[in-house]
Amino acid sequence: MSDWQSTITPPALARLLRATPASATAGRQRRPAYRALAAQVQRLVSEGRLPVGTRMPAERELAAALELSRTTIATAYETLRAEGYLHSRRGSGSWTALPAGSSPPTDALFPLPPDSCGQLIDLGAASPAAPQPLLAEAAARAMEQLPAYALGHGHYPTGVPVLREAVAQRFTERGLPTTPDQILITTGAMSALDLVRRGLLRRGDRVAVESPSYAHQLRALRQSGARLVPVPQHRPQGAEQLPRWDLDDWRQVLRGASPRLAYLIPDFHNPTGALIGEEQRRELLAAARAAGTTVLADETMAELGWGTDRMPRPMAALDRTAEVVTVGSAGKLIWGGLRVGWIRASPALVRRLAADRIHIDVGTPVLDQLICAALIGERFTELREHRLARLRESVAALLPALREHLPSWRFAEPAGGMTLWLDTAGLSGAALARAGEQLGLRIAMGSRFGTDGAFEAFVRLPLTVPAAAATTTAERLAAAAAVAAAEQGRHGAPAAEALAV
Amino acid sequence: MSDWQSTITPPALARLLRATPASATAGRQRRPAYRALAAQVQRLVSEGRLPVGTRMPAERELAAALELSRTTIATAYETLRAEGYLHSRRGSGSWTALPAGSSPPTDALFPLPPDSCGQLIDLGAASPAAPQPLLAEAAARAMEQLPAYALGHGHYPTGVPVLREAVAQRFTERGLPTTPDQILITTGAMSALDLVRRGLLRRGDRVAVESPSYAHQLRALRQSGARLVPVPQHRPQGAEQLPRWDLDDWRQVLRGASPRLAYLIPDFHNPTGALIGEEQRRELLAAARAAGTTVLADETMAELGWGTDRMPRPMAALDRTAEVVTVGSAGKLIWGGLRVGWIRASPALVRRLAADRIHIDVGTPVLDQLICAALIGERFTELREHRLARLRESVAALLPALREHLPSWRFAEPAGGMTLWLDTAGLSGAALARAGEQLGLRIAMGSRFGTDGAFEAFVRLPLTVPAAAATTTAERLAAAAAVAAAEQGRHGAPAAEALAV
Repeated sequence: MSDWQSTITPPALARLLRATPASATAGRQRRPAYRALAAQVQRLVSEGRLPVGTRMPAERELAAALELSRTTIATAYETLRAEGYLHSRRGSGSWTALPAGSSPPTDALFPLPPDSCGQLIDLGAASPAAPQPLLAEAAARAMEQLPAYALGHGHYPTGVPVLREAVAQRFTERGLPTTPDQILITTGAMSALDLVRRGLLRRGDRVAVESPSYAHQLRALRQSGARLVPVPQHRPQGAEQLPRWDLDDWRQVLRGASPRLAYLIPDFHNPTGALIGEEQRRELLAAARAAGTTVLADETMAELGWGTDRMPRPMAALDRTAEVVTVGSAGKLIWGGLRVGWIRASPALVRRLAADRIHIDVGTPVLDQLICAALIGERFTELREHRLARLRESVAALLPALREHLPSWRFAEPAGGMTLWLDTAGLSGAALARAGEQLGLRIAMGSRFGTDGAFEAFVRLPLTVPAAAATTTAERLAAAAAVAAAEQGRHGAPAAEALAV
Repeated sequence: MSDWQSTITPPALARLLRATPASATAGRQRRPAYRALAAQVQRLVSEGRLPVGTRMPAERELAAALELSRTTIATAYETLRAEGYLHSRRGSGSWTALPAGSSPPTDALFPLPPDSCGQLIDLGAASPAAPQPLLAEAAARAMEQLPAYALGHGHYPTGVPVLREAVAQRFTERGLPTTPDQILITTGAMSALDLVRRGLLRRGDRVAVESPSYAHQLRALRQSGARLVPVPQHRPQGAEQLPRWDLDDWRQVLRGASPRLAYLIPDFHNPTGALIGEEQRRELLAAARAAGTTVLADETMAELGWGTDRMPRPMAALDRTAEVVTVGSAGKLIWGGLRVGWIRASPALVRRLAADRIHIDVGTPVLDQLICAALIGERFTELREHRLARLRESVAALLPALREHLPSWRFAEPAGGMTLWLDTAGLSGAALARAGEQLGLRIAMGSRFGTDGAFEAFVRLPLTVPAAAATTTAERLAAAAAVAAAEQGRHGAPAAEALAV
């Protein structure tokens, strides 16, 4: 519900502020501290780095964190209120806002209609075109079956049986024996995550998340009233190596905070591309079981191992005594325009979520389910090979182009999935996104994938850029980087703290 | 979120208890008052008439309402706790529950897979079969367009342009000039209502609703933390006449409670079938505007006037100064297996809800949208005539059969829509539903459409019963009525208070 908003801690805001010049022009001007602070906050809000509706620290706490006088903070807040960047309710605190009439910051994660893009290169969505002629053939097949279904009311809260069977069968093939009554078909992976949030979380529940993690889920968790406990990923050998889980951190968080849920993306993590091995999976499951924490495993990318043949088994297969809810999707493997995903859970939880679901979307469209059943149930290998081949083409073209045009940026090369996580060597992702807009490039800024403004100096790229567009993409990205660097040069680079992974 | 639960007031619970024999067998036994009270509550919970998770009145208040000693109430609560029908949290109250392992009450409003029904007559869902060959032809047409869309990522948070245009055009034809940027395409009407709840309501906001009203929306509003303010419908000439709004009541509620939303079904109301004229619509809009209340007009049934040619204009057309959000659906007109609905609102609200929607279902499936666009945009008259013809056949067969087999039941004959609201002359809807299960009949009990256990002696029937099944339906319904009456006879009829409309 819209009344719950996220909170930023005083230290996190301090980090963010230290990394934020007051404005694009005012860098050198001398002016009172409260003015500079107000201008910085205003900029953070305008750029969406401090989301609208974020609860600000109490004046006293922020004064301590910034080593400024309480009066300075109070005056800065007052200025922000006067300019419409802050709303306060007596006794209950202050929240960031945007002045009436001002437009919210552009968000590359909000999909544009594909046909509206023109010359624009959209690096926001990591979503591929549909596999043709496979999709058309499966749709034709589904059309033949439709008349039989059209005789009924068409409502399937748990899913059309033929698709539940196909999805269960696929789990079984991946080493996780599954029956159809353990499968709930949903209207895409986001709606699967939404059903789990609604069914398992109460407002104020703690949810442990990898840091970074999937931007849309982080935002939805905040909006649903969850308290996020971020657990940083671990990069023993630096930014060119894929991260792993830091199990000491995870054990500490699970033991200390005993969160209701641990949201994990073990297979080709979004955004980092990390692939977690079975040993780490087992250790985390044991710690979660001990803490009474339910593991929410997001397998959206699990079938997309374009660079490896050896996939770990699904988390739910590795520890039958831990409570694991698994979410999957046809959106990446097939097409986002078919909204089909699924939840694998106990038959009892499947029934309960299906009952909740009646008040949300009733069920998933029948035709989309039949199309997915035709592809997953009958032509899975073909489908997967088609998708992996396209991804290999894109990767083979994009990665060299990035290394050539952005030699100072560092990234670890994943073995699957659809996302690439780039360390911009100190360039602000927000500044890059702003510069990109001028150059026909939509860029997903790293801070969207973190909490409290972390990952400011990162961007996420989709591995779905067509091979033919790879060079142009890298060139425009380099041009945007030059613009952003020039701007940043006028204010000095962000402080190291703000770049911490 | 799941932590919010609805509350029952002491007087409402008292009414419900007076109408509830302790159990099907224990009617004559003598036993202490606390035992009888515990048994009654247990039965209400088991039958779903007191929904699981309902917050019970404080012992002192209930004692006053029932004119029993506080000790009796306390002992009854203690008994219910011991048997698993009540959970208490110190200082925060007691909530109804079901003992571990016991299955929740059967709910005819939860759709069964059509093919699983066999000889069962399902009177739960008011959802028709798809219009053929229209659906198949539109699907074939959509298939031709699919390849062009399949080149993109397929995400359309606001909807595919061709459908937004078709829906806007249809509003314009109905007397409400509308542009595509005022239309948000959703995954069915329920998801439209869900987006409005999430976007406009904060926990604890008051929402004025007609009493009775659409069961799923009432339940979803409760679950989302809204405080329902029921406004009884008005039947000046008794149960054989369709109800109207009592504008004095509405003015009083709007002025007194100034609710955030007023949820209304002005066209062929679900369940009563009421059709509200333009004059009443105008008066209510004026009162809502004065109270600063947003009107949420549910037009799910608006195109289904099978018994009238003269439709009032949409509420949003009658008062441009009032804030009206309109929800519509293709589910009844076309088919529930296509999950397509829409919201008509200001372009600014459409943009805001579309942004929220990214975290819920991202968008509505493209193929379903193209099918709807083909039908609504190009073959609307044909489509509508097909649907109205089927409904007229069902009504012509069902209503006489009901009058013949259930002469004591009273109902008002609507001029459109898909639901019939029957006054069972004192028979408990829950008892009827229970008896129906034994006789191959799923019955939607009236209390689901009310608040605080009202409408216990009503049932809702769908007007989508095939003409050929009308007689069998009426016969089985009469048989169920006989069984329920016999059972009820052992305990005396429900008290009049419980039957108040």
